[in-house]
Amino acid sequence: MNILIAPDSFKESLTALQVANAIEIGFKHIFKQATYQKVPMADGGEGTVQSLVDATQGTLLSQQVTAPLGNKIQAVWGLSGDKQTAFIEMAAASGLHLVPPAQRNPLITTSYGTGELIKAALDYGVNNIILGIGGSATNDGGVGMLQALGIKFTDQQQRDIGFGGQALMDIAHIDLSQCDPRLQYVQLEVACDVNNPLCGEQGASAIFAPQKGASPAMIKQLDLALQHFAQMVQQHCQLDILTPAGAGAAGGMGGGLLLLPQVTLKSGVEIVINAVNLAEKIKQADLVITGEGRMDAQSIHGKTPIGVANIAKQFNKPVIALVGSLKSDYPLVYNYGIDAVFPIIRQVADLTDTLAQAEQNLISTAHNVARLYQLAQGHYSRFNLK
Amino acid sequence: MNILIAPDSFKESLTALQVANAIEIGFKHIFKQATYQKVPMADGGEGTVQSLVDATQGTLLSQQVTAPLGNKIQAVWGLSGDKQTAFIEMAAASGLHLVPPAQRNPLITTSYGTGELIKAALDYGVNNIILGIGGSATNDGGVGMLQALGIKFTDQQQRDIGFGGQALMDIAHIDLSQCDPRLQYVQLEVACDVNNPLCGEQGASAIFAPQKGASPAMIKQLDLALQHFAQMVQQHCQLDILTPAGAGAAGGMGGGLLLLPQVTLKSGVEIVINAVNLAEKIKQADLVITGEGRMDAQSIHGKTPIGVANIAKQFNKPVIALVGSLKSDYPLVYNYGIDAVFPIIRQVADLTDTLAQAEQNLISTAHNVARLYQLAQGHYSRFNLK
Repeated sequence: MNILIAPDSFKESLTALQVANAIEIGFKHIFKQATYQKVPMADGGEGTVQSLVDATQGTLLSQQVTAPLGNKIQAVWGLSGDKQTAFIEMAAASGLHLVPPAQRNPLITTSYGTGELIKAALDYGVNNIILGIGGSATNDGGVGMLQALGIKFTDQQQRDIGFGGQALMDIAHIDLSQCDPRLQYVQLEVACDVNNPLCGEQGASAIFAPQKGASPAMIKQLDLALQHFAQMVQQHCQLDILTPAGAGAAGGMGGGLLLLPQVTLKSGVEIVINAVNLAEKIKQADLVITGEGRMDAQSIHGKTPIGVANIAKQFNKPVIALVGSLKSDYPLVYNYGIDAVFPIIRQVADLTDTLAQAEQNLISTAHNVARLYQLAQGHYSRFNLK
Repeated sequence: MNILIAPDSFKESLTALQVANAIEIGFKHIFKQATYQKVPMADGGEGTVQSLVDATQGTLLSQQVTAPLGNKIQAVWGLSGDKQTAFIEMAAASGLHLVPPAQRNPLITTSYGTGELIKAALDYGVNNIILGIGGSATNDGGVGMLQALGIKFTDQQQRDIGFGGQALMDIAHIDLSQCDPRLQYVQLEVACDVNNPLCGEQGASAIFAPQKGASPAMIKQLDLALQHFAQMVQQHCQLDILTPAGAGAAGGMGGGLLLLPQVTLKSGVEIVINAVNLAEKIKQADLVITGEGRMDAQSIHGKTPIGVANIAKQFNKPVIALVGSLKSDYPLVYNYGIDAVFPIIRQVADLTDTLAQAEQNLISTAHNVARLYQLAQGHYSRFNLK
């Protein structure tokens, strides 16, 4: 039997590799002779770099970058085992968690550090970059990131504009000529699972800026600034970033990225599925096991288990999910290729204790799933009576 | 497929019948054509009367009895569907929960009400009585119960002795001649899962009286009183109740019961297994599902799932347990015939909410177990790709 284990991480408790290892331990007690393929997965969100590094036997690297408020920090990015692909999470350089709650203000926060991470990857000589853009503190249309990569944004007086969402209002000229030329030869895949346009009621400022510290007045100001930015891009680059789906992702980062060559916005889990060569691995499997920290009806929207199940069902493979918790609206996942789901909690306990028990609970649940699987195949224990 | 569902109750949330119904609902979504045998089970402890009434399509009856402190209460007992067997729990008439914590005092609490319940069953004309003796408030050697059934305990002045553990000290004569004669023709099976002798370090007073409100001084007094009782029994009835295993159960109730004819002390779950004819039903089953509120290493000592598994393994049937919670020392149950165990908790929540969600969680877990069972047999969903 060939068992493919392709889970996401369990947020706040286990990396995807740790989840995969625990499931393997539980299964191996029963299916000792089976072949196990462990593929740490992710959906483009938090944990994606770690999972892709683990899945490709890659390495984590550290880079000094500019944090959202302008201070310098060390940010981690990943390199694949074959050194061909860089894995970057925007949150590592420009994340909301890097800004103390009282100082969260998207009028001034910049995505510059994310551009520096991309530059570090280019310096390393990679051919591909996978960029996750979740969890950002910014609403600057990705302009900070573009500045770090050499694109010039200047005001009426030919001065470089400043950092942050409000500075976009000052843009009078955009000059692409000094954009890092290496970007011409590097595929930049951006994990983007939202369809929001750049501006308007469903735009970046209205939908995502509040959680980054924007007041209603700020939202208006930010939205006008992004509109002006889009107008300047149209005028100077003959490019529409106002209407594409996903342009509003990550404070307009989705839109700003379109100024770079070789950029594609894609579903995060699809990017990961390709990066780890999941389809080839699933082809060889008899059973697919996936999982995530919390499964609910929202899981069908681009979460890892559904992405894995989608590939598995192309090859008619059975799919079992092991999850940290399971909301009552979860049964929708049965329509998306998940054949059975098992939550791992064993006892009433608070969140801290439950997270601490995750590994043991996962081993135990995987073990019992393996037992039941074997049982249903007719191989149950011939219990010796006393 | 024939699926036998034989769980215990989930204490504080679901009766065994409710547990069985929930498991059936979950399974029927997947195995629609299967035959389902639902057998509410118990182990002689709390919930035994309800389970046996449910298992035999019997009825619950109410009887006025004497509570442990002498006041009158209504107590519930059960009658089997064929009206041949009475089901009685000592706790219904003489339970600790009937005495407010501040008044708990085994020197004065009596088991008289339990005798009245037995008498009510005799009045009804049953041929068998199944008596569970868990949860009592008393340490009176079952003397109150025996008094209610006509046995005379008198002091040096030929006066009836009073109620409670301390009154045993006054016994000078025991007269069995007025014991209810119908007891000669009725099988009285007592569910007793402890081996404690009547007296001494492992006796009723030392081991069980503290939880009934006895101080160290009281324990000494109670133990001496039981010793005196045993001596009087030896003298007047030529019967040893001091040494039999289980005589110390329920404050010496196990010993006192030995004064009655046709009494046998047995494992509670074995009594229930016989009463519901479980072996015959398991013979016909392809799959056995059991469960209990909480499973741990202690479950191997006379708890329902292990009793069910023991019978199932005599016929080489697979056994799955669904449980409310699962302590980390549980894997011992694999050595006692349980093939796989699944806890039903789906989310972090407090005990109250978790108990309230038990039915839904059980349906969900049963449903996924059925899905996995079917899956392992090769019948997994042919998911239609978008």
